[in-house]
Amino acid sequence: MRRHRVTYLPSGTVATVPAGTSVFDAAHWAGLPIESTCGGRGTCGTCRVRVLEGASEPTPADHRHLADGLAAGWRLACRCVVASDLVVEVPRLQRTPRAATMGVGRVVLLEPNVRAHRLDLAPPSLDDPRSHLARVRDALAAGPGLEVTVEPTVLAELEVAIGERAGAVTTVVVGDRLVRVVPEGERARTFGVAIDLGTTTVVATLVDLATGVVAAVATEINHQAVHGADVIARMGYAMAEADGLDRLRSEALETIDLVIARVLAEADVRPDEVYEAIVVGNAAMLHLLVGAHPRSIAVAPFVASFLEPQDLAARDLGVRIHPAGRVVLLPSLGAYVGADIVADVLATGLARGPERTLLVDVGTNGEIVCGNVERAAATAAPAGPAFEGGQILHGMRATEGAIEGVDLTGGRVTLQVIGDVRPTGICGSGLIDAVAQLRLVGLLDERGGLLSREEALATRHPLADHLVEARGVRAFELAPGVVLTQLDIRELQSAKGAIATGIEVVLDVLGLGPHELDRILLAGSFGTYIHPESARIIGLVPPVPVQRISAVGNAASEGAKMALLSFREREVASQLPARIGYVELSGRTDFNERFLRNLAFPRLPLAQAPAAEVAS
Amino acid sequence: MRRHRVTYLPSGTVATVPAGTSVFDAAHWAGLPIESTCGGRGTCGTCRVRVLEGASEPTPADHRHLADGLAAGWRLACRCVVASDLVVEVPRLQRTPRAATMGVGRVVLLEPNVRAHRLDLAPPSLDDPRSHLARVRDALAAGPGLEVTVEPTVLAELEVAIGERAGAVTTVVVGDRLVRVVPEGERARTFGVAIDLGTTTVVATLVDLATGVVAAVATEINHQAVHGADVIARMGYAMAEADGLDRLRSEALETIDLVIARVLAEADVRPDEVYEAIVVGNAAMLHLLVGAHPRSIAVAPFVASFLEPQDLAARDLGVRIHPAGRVVLLPSLGAYVGADIVADVLATGLARGPERTLLVDVGTNGEIVCGNVERAAATAAPAGPAFEGGQILHGMRATEGAIEGVDLTGGRVTLQVIGDVRPTGICGSGLIDAVAQLRLVGLLDERGGLLSREEALATRHPLADHLVEARGVRAFELAPGVVLTQLDIRELQSAKGAIATGIEVVLDVLGLGPHELDRILLAGSFGTYIHPESARIIGLVPPVPVQRISAVGNAASEGAKMALLSFREREVASQLPARIGYVELSGRTDFNERFLRNLAFPRLPLAQAPAAEVAS
Repeated sequence: MRRHRVTYLPSGTVATVPAGTSVFDAAHWAGLPIESTCGGRGTCGTCRVRVLEGASEPTPADHRHLADGLAAGWRLACRCVVASDLVVEVPRLQRTPRAATMGVGRVVLLEPNVRAHRLDLAPPSLDDPRSHLARVRDALAAGPGLEVTVEPTVLAELEVAIGERAGAVTTVVVGDRLVRVVPEGERARTFGVAIDLGTTTVVATLVDLATGVVAAVATEINHQAVHGADVIARMGYAMAEADGLDRLRSEALETIDLVIARVLAEADVRPDEVYEAIVVGNAAMLHLLVGAHPRSIAVAPFVASFLEPQDLAARDLGVRIHPAGRVVLLPSLGAYVGADIVADVLATGLARGPERTLLVDVGTNGEIVCGNVERAAATAAPAGPAFEGGQILHGMRATEGAIEGVDLTGGRVTLQVIGDVRPTGICGSGLIDAVAQLRLVGLLDERGGLLSREEALATRHPLADHLVEARGVRAFELAPGVVLTQLDIRELQSAKGAIATGIEVVLDVLGLGPHELDRILLAGSFGTYIHPESARIIGLVPPVPVQRISAVGNAASEGAKMALLSFREREVASQLPARIGYVELSGRTDFNERFLRNLAFPRLPLAQAPAAEVAS
Repeated sequence: MRRHRVTYLPSGTVATVPAGTSVFDAAHWAGLPIESTCGGRGTCGTCRVRVLEGASEPTPADHRHLADGLAAGWRLACRCVVASDLVVEVPRLQRTPRAATMGVGRVVLLEPNVRAHRLDLAPPSLDDPRSHLARVRDALAAGPGLEVTVEPTVLAELEVAIGERAGAVTTVVVGDRLVRVVPEGERARTFGVAIDLGTTTVVATLVDLATGVVAAVATEINHQAVHGADVIARMGYAMAEADGLDRLRSEALETIDLVIARVLAEADVRPDEVYEAIVVGNAAMLHLLVGAHPRSIAVAPFVASFLEPQDLAARDLGVRIHPAGRVVLLPSLGAYVGADIVADVLATGLARGPERTLLVDVGTNGEIVCGNVERAAATAAPAGPAFEGGQILHGMRATEGAIEGVDLTGGRVTLQVIGDVRPTGICGSGLIDAVAQLRLVGLLDERGGLLSREEALATRHPLADHLVEARGVRAFELAPGVVLTQLDIRELQSAKGAIATGIEVVLDVLGLGPHELDRILLAGSFGTYIHPESARIIGLVPPVPVQRISAVGNAASEGAKMALLSFREREVASQLPARIGYVELSGRTDFNERFLRNLAFPRLPLAQAPAAEVAS
């Protein structure tokens, strides 16, 4: 894709963007919020800029708003499409911007897609027989500069709001749709809800769109979970059972209804005061939500029915907010790198600045996005269930009794157990810790072989007694009745090998060496619990200095919230698929060779980063 | 509103259109159907024309489709907006146009807004992992040149249609919405239904959109009729009863459901094969249909909630066609000149050609539209219930037993009775006939006074014996037990006086003399039964030569059908309100004076038209 440089004066900021991006959007990518009241729809005329070099022909909107200034290069930034290198002068940035820190240290302007406007209306008369609708539309065009289409429910509201009382009304506009007309004297609050439709957990975050304040948060186990823990199992259920798809869809909707009902009750908000829901989740979850069969995602060549962002009426989807409110699904990057990862990217600012960032969401499928504003790519690596405790003898999910942290230094086994109870098994982060620690204390060789008790005793290893046999193979006893077997270690090698291979391929595609990474971000709920040092030691992530590795928590919900609170961020989300190349691993002939090489653990001690980088 | 001339070469045809009209639409007004496959949406690039004089700046769509020809003046006609006088060369008119004669002698191109396209799709592969949706969208863009948005139901259909079988699918696109994807091997028929939502009768016309052939027609009494015969009564019911609006809405929907079910059964068509319904009716009927309270239409200053055309999802309105199909309400010209009259205008070609046409729909409210392509205006005249038999001693609706025609020549009373039974009353057309005949035979003076039996006997009038007394006033006996009283005649004078005043005001606004009218069209079901000669004699319409007066039957249904079969005609309908000025009679200080003058009947014999006009 061809890219061009847009230089913004007087700041001198440069944005490098694909051809076809608007000057308005490009400015936002570069951190310059050009003033606008219509949200970049070409109707308010506020976002004028002067194109000093590379001006293209004026558009009809330019003619309408800027007739006198066309020759001097004035254009509406939102209508001006980048088709060559440009130099533009920006006279007006967002005045007195209301902003909030969200996501991973990102500052987001509060410019929601849902806006309430109080309009003073001249009363109808024989001399001014405009319809109520025309009266409202004209006032919206004259005031905030909005050109709106009309939801059918509004046709019935107009007479109630305008007919009996002259004077003012408050309109609620979602995007360019007039969704509600509220009579004078009634309050017109506007809320939005961010939904993270996770395979395991569904999270709703209710946000007051007028203030940006979070009003309530609720979580609930995804009711689909009875049909299998991971996305592969869910797709299998949809394929195996005649009514599987219908059930999974109902369960997704029912879970969403439940978390929405909870946040509404907690914040004392009515459903019809919620005008937008942003939904993120992996592609399979979004397919199930709209009733699209996930079959073709499950089987080669792994194609989705849709990856594109969707903007649906709440009443059509069956989500209980305002019936004419919108449910917006963020786009996916590929069949296995979904809208949740797009939300992660939004929340972390990946691909927006110069920092070379690697984001990894570790799970049954490892999702990997890497790059910076210049270039970025994504892939998915089939890690299998080991990180979620599957195929591990004493493996379990991260619930009470699970060993989630292991320390073998000082010649003793120190465990971190969820709930501070007697350990009953080991979860993903404990597994990674245990293996990393076994490597550190010399009980596990580079190829993944566990020492025998005899070999360990020969070196008087203080933990030699923990080396046991279980199910006929070597094992390490973490606690009474909880062991890690040689086979478990093989499973982990396979899982981390798949993700390491995905990372390697993406770095190769981008022409980046692992040491060139400025940040490694561990996303997803699992990512929160992985110890960065252990991830490095087992080679799950490249061996960058440990301080460059951090967990970003529930970044998907944060990204969804950002898309709710800022039309500009939502626009960025919709452009991400065009900016982030998707690499399909199963299509690569070198995958197996790379994978086999990545089964081994890195040699210890890990090589240090070049001095220059450490200093930077 | 400023108007400009567009001259089309090589034909030399000139269209005079308001600023802001597209060159594409203006050409259609002038009878030149410029080739297009996307329906004037700027996506197919087919409608290129060369602007020889007055070329404006190219639009982004021009740049996309016509990069090389911009300097030579090539533009997309559908994106090129008339802002000055233009001369354009049209290289391609609609090739092999499929057309049909509809309405009142109008030839309409079959270019429905609903189109089925068979698409050959390359099968998904690891090298081509586009989503099903992207695959379909790309094929629609590459083939017919359509850029579509997607209905939520389609997201679920894609996998069924594409996932399991490679190869071809058929898409159904409504406007720019992708509404359905049909697997190879299943037939994809496309139907539309034109609905005339009359106050009295609801008519559904099912049309095969692929052929333009009418598949079935059904009619049903509007189920709202139990709450009153006319629109005033219905609005009164909505205002008087707490659940009146809800009931009227349900009854309208129920009647529409019934007529649709009948045409579907007759033609053996499934509801989901019907993708569009065009609904026409007066503004109050359309308000009730969408649940908008008609209160403000009923009381001064007579303002509607909406006059603008509406394009609603069938599932939102509750009309049982394809759920994602569209229900399109044509626009109204004013609160009392509704979408039914707009459909009449479409069907008759009024305001499209040079012919100065007066269209009158006689009823409780007389709707009047007059003009030609240069100028047109409309108004509504409050005639009251006389034409429907109300306030008339022996008045009745046009049902069995009603006198619908009267002839008093030859000294005898000759009656035309509906059903050839003994007359039991008189309906509107009979009333007009009777009064006209009484004038002709000299029994009724210019001011509306009926002769007494004595006066008639004094002149040996052969019908003197029919002059009787009834309820204490003079009367004329039409049949045993059926008389026309002096009071009835006063009612008719009042009714025709209102309409004549409306016509007079509109002619004044247009600067036209009554003799300059080339055609008078009597619309509405009542108009079909009025004898043109009688209408002239009583002064209901101006005294033009009788051969210029004709009835146009159910033109509203015809107009709705035209809007269904031609996106160009629908565009014309949506532009009519901007082209036809609406005159509010109740706002005029001279109304009463004019009305009183128009109560009298024209002097007989009627003046002949100037010789030059008769010859033309």
